[in-house]
Amino acid sequence: MQIVANVLMETINWDSNGLVCAVVQERHSLRILMVAWMNAEALQHTIESGYAHYYSRSRRKLWMKGEQSGHRQKVFEMRLDCDGDAIVLLVEQLGDIACHTGHASCFYRIYQQQNWQIVDPIIKSEDEIYSSQSNEQ
Amino acid sequence: MQIVANVLMETINWDSNGLVCAVVQERHSLRILMVAWMNAEALQHTIESGYAHYYSRSRRKLWMKGEQSGHRQKVFEMRLDCDGDAIVLLVEQLGDIACHTGHASCFYRIYQQQNWQIVDPIIKSEDEIYSSQSNEQ
Repeated sequence: MQIVANVLMETINWDSNGLVCAVVQERHSLRILMVAWMNAEALQHTIESGYAHYYSRSRRKLWMKGEQSGHRQKVFEMRLDCDGDAIVLLVEQLGDIACHTGHASCFYRIYQQQNWQIVDPIIKSEDEIYSSQSNEQ
Repeated sequence: MQIVANVLMETINWDSNGLVCAVVQERHSLRILMVAWMNAEALQHTIESGYAHYYSRSRRKLWMKGEQSGHRQKVFEMRLDCDGDAIVLLVEQLGDIACHTGHASCFYRIYQQQNWQIVDPIIKSEDEIYSSQSNEQ
């Protein structure tokens, strides 16, 4: 746990739960794929492995994106914002699906006519994605 | 306060503080400019005015982006994610500066060599931006 420099971690403005917001952007299309949360352990695993790891607030545990779906995210760049409480990950999205619903991006609903309308297709059904296990988000 | 349909607001998964995460993306470059927070009032003002409004967690109040700097954000599209706790705003950034530091984007630091290195220039100094007042972020 010592190979990541303290200065890297100390610059981050972790919230009261020890988390930082992570915005995930696809490196070719620049499409925003998802927003997740990282604790220090998730960030460290991301740096060490080169694949995005997050902290699940609902399940209260570390997870590697794609650990069940195979839809891993290879990280090419990480940026930190001015006040240190948000990170942008520039990634290559394996399988071209980031969302557990089977949409390419979690942001598949657009505000139109005073509601959130689904505008993007499901590329693969959840059943197909999680044929053997389930639970990933 | 009634002109925005309840269904719009009820679909959002507001956190325990009544906030939703807002990721701001420039509509031409698709660059991620900043991450901020919205309460229901900020979202309503954004929809009604067409310009991004946020809720400042530090100052505990609604603010319009650019109210002091002039660097307003004209909103062209809003997307909601699968679990309803994050919004992407696609904006035109007036003045081409989103960050209170004078950088184009708040994400001006990249992870390199175990640290966060500043890689983008300051376009305009804070003094120049906030010549008469200050306090915006």
